[in-house]
Amino acid sequence: MSEVIIRGGTMILTVDPDSHVLAGDIAVKDDVLVQVGGDYTPSTSDYEILDAEGCIVMPGLVQSHVHMCQTLARGRADDLALLDWLRNVVWPYEASLDRSAMTAAAQLACTELLLGGTTAILDMGTVHHTDALFEVARDAGLRASIGKAMMDEDDPQAPANLRETTESSLSESARLCASWHGSENGRLRYAYAPRFVLSCTDDLLREVSTAAAKAGVHIHTHSSENRDEIAEVKRRKGVDNIVHLHNVGVTGDNVCLAHCVWLDDNERELLRDTGTHVLHCPSSNLKLGSGIAEIPELLAEGISVSIGADGAPCNNNLDAFVEMRLAALLHKPRRGAEAMRAATVVKMATMGGAIALGQADLIGSLEVGKKADVICVDTRGPHVAPVSNPYSALVYACRSADVRHVVVDGRVVVRDKTLLTLDVDTVLTSARGQAQAVFDRMK
Amino acid sequence: MSEVIIRGGTMILTVDPDSHVLAGDIAVKDDVLVQVGGDYTPSTSDYEILDAEGCIVMPGLVQSHVHMCQTLARGRADDLALLDWLRNVVWPYEASLDRSAMTAAAQLACTELLLGGTTAILDMGTVHHTDALFEVARDAGLRASIGKAMMDEDDPQAPANLRETTESSLSESARLCASWHGSENGRLRYAYAPRFVLSCTDDLLREVSTAAAKAGVHIHTHSSENRDEIAEVKRRKGVDNIVHLHNVGVTGDNVCLAHCVWLDDNERELLRDTGTHVLHCPSSNLKLGSGIAEIPELLAEGISVSIGADGAPCNNNLDAFVEMRLAALLHKPRRGAEAMRAATVVKMATMGGAIALGQADLIGSLEVGKKADVICVDTRGPHVAPVSNPYSALVYACRSADVRHVVVDGRVVVRDKTLLTLDVDTVLTSARGQAQAVFDRMK
Repeated sequence: MSEVIIRGGTMILTVDPDSHVLAGDIAVKDDVLVQVGGDYTPSTSDYEILDAEGCIVMPGLVQSHVHMCQTLARGRADDLALLDWLRNVVWPYEASLDRSAMTAAAQLACTELLLGGTTAILDMGTVHHTDALFEVARDAGLRASIGKAMMDEDDPQAPANLRETTESSLSESARLCASWHGSENGRLRYAYAPRFVLSCTDDLLREVSTAAAKAGVHIHTHSSENRDEIAEVKRRKGVDNIVHLHNVGVTGDNVCLAHCVWLDDNERELLRDTGTHVLHCPSSNLKLGSGIAEIPELLAEGISVSIGADGAPCNNNLDAFVEMRLAALLHKPRRGAEAMRAATVVKMATMGGAIALGQADLIGSLEVGKKADVICVDTRGPHVAPVSNPYSALVYACRSADVRHVVVDGRVVVRDKTLLTLDVDTVLTSARGQAQAVFDRMK
Repeated sequence: MSEVIIRGGTMILTVDPDSHVLAGDIAVKDDVLVQVGGDYTPSTSDYEILDAEGCIVMPGLVQSHVHMCQTLARGRADDLALLDWLRNVVWPYEASLDRSAMTAAAQLACTELLLGGTTAILDMGTVHHTDALFEVARDAGLRASIGKAMMDEDDPQAPANLRETTESSLSESARLCASWHGSENGRLRYAYAPRFVLSCTDDLLREVSTAAAKAGVHIHTHSSENRDEIAEVKRRKGVDNIVHLHNVGVTGDNVCLAHCVWLDDNERELLRDTGTHVLHCPSSNLKLGSGIAEIPELLAEGISVSIGADGAPCNNNLDAFVEMRLAALLHKPRRGAEAMRAATVVKMATMGGAIALGQADLIGSLEVGKKADVICVDTRGPHVAPVSNPYSALVYACRSADVRHVVVDGRVVVRDKTLLTLDVDTVLTSARGQAQAVFDRMK
């Protein structure tokens, strides 16, 4: 039994039900937290110490909406609204990914995510090569719920390579779920990922609802991101987006809906009554011109909200600090300067994500007995000083470059800002080469 | 005559009228650019080389609205709207600053600004200790136009220590202007800084207009930031904010107005017709719940717009990268995904600032004969790769921690991410101690 001791943290944000702020050590045995705060004396000679002086020590950040597969398209799809962005760049890009490019994209994503303090994600892949995403997350040490994108609607605007039959989409998803769900000590999980209503037949969505319930896994999709999208759903289905999802069984506490920018009262009520999770992506919603989701209102109504960066071509980072800061600032003009306080946002980015992923009993807070997903954020930079309130420092002043150590499932994956699980130079070289190859194939 | 050679830049953004993107070297003799792009062979043995491999090389970032004096109040005034923010925290804080605290605040600000690639600022101080701001900027090597805040209105909500007579306000401003304007090879300049209409008598503003014109210096004030503020101006003056400023002579091409969130058509026309400059502070406008300035509309009407972080208690960074990214994203939901392209924002943050500061002939672009204010931004991080468009990489993916070298007025002030002009640990220790002392005095 080995131990990791995170020693001498200046401000430990537990994000537990009482929101304790402690000081001192955190002790990890194997994959579990055995002490939070105070002084810890190792119980074995097999231990490793991480120095946390001057650091905020806190639960690893959870991003509940990411597309690792898109990372090679960073900077290739600027200044486009959602449907053009998908049809003109992102779908052709995804259709041109081979397994090597997928691996390179996922490695680049994991590198940015882990170095930036994100320890867990909910990820939507593309239609193919989903095993590569799991393999990379496995080796990088990231906690990840991943699903292959499902696109069985006969959409002439989607590339042929991304169009699949209902049956093949379901059988490939089932195969992936059987292969990967629960593996790596439960660190990897499957999540069914129908792309969005416009890409999916009603039959597919109904079957997904049944299959996910049967397998005990989550469903991850996009909803109500853009006004053209919701108008098209209404035209095709005759009802609003969330109502349609509800009608085909895709609401509930195992359902995660990215964006939810455009909702009416009835849809909000449906989300609340079914316990469906909203995944807030503030940068992406701005960059694609989608709008500003009414997050303070959703929180006030008791709806579950968490945060995600979405993909590199619509952000263009995968940076939980950028999203936290923006989630805190963006809603104040409409709701007042006191809306979305820093502590609220920290909770969304940790416990909020854990709840969305159905892992509130395992991650999202620092409590004895929970999984050891912990990050140390150095607050000693000139852009953070002087520190008076740790929540404020973290949300309004710190940046991902301040992340010093990262522990996932008890394993030290970043130590003193160095990623231990992937060679960053190799990842970068591979990403550049594979990006070039993918965009050459798209010509 | 000594030379600085910035060698082997991968992407040189000139931000000249043709927006050239070049590669190769940049050569500096004394304070002036003598070559931009291509290969440069030193003409003397007295030269210094900065390696720019993998870097975007570009004009130093200009922030046209900063309050260095407020930096010790970072994180102390969260979740407040403008007038409460001023009256409950920021004014009492400013009133409690002594000269040592002012020096500590300015050193902390200069450290963050220079390490983050900001080479020039327009700064508003507080009522007292303005010499300390100039001394710190002088020693840190920052290019700065600075003015003491002027507050002669008999406002019972302002601390006694910040209230001054019209005459003393003008005479102290004139003394500072005579002492500092044009010093340090022109790197330091004076800018008259009446705080905002609600803090200034009409007489003061009229005298400022005359005195600034006579001295050939700029005027820097706040305007139309918040709806309560503009309502109060209308109530007291009987006209809209910009109309009032115009009536007392405070419009024109030497006038810089921070915020301008709430303008009507007539006020926009006044700004355009007089060549008055708008200073856009997107983070601050969100954080104080003020609103979102209509920047794309102002730019389309030909109004001069530049960018600033404002002060640490309303941001909470002084980070031009954060402001650029937000300025690019924030307007897209209202104006479409194609609004505020990355290249437009880069121009606002460089030439836009130079124009606002009245130094378009000296800084803001990389052109032979201009002053050497140059930064190198490393694009080799996993959060930026792969790079396809340098403007996109800079605005949407890079962060201030990527700034590798900074040259101001031909002097290397940051080399390989190390500040050469101030000792960062000493600055941090002093900032913490002085912040504690200031907030103790406020009790």
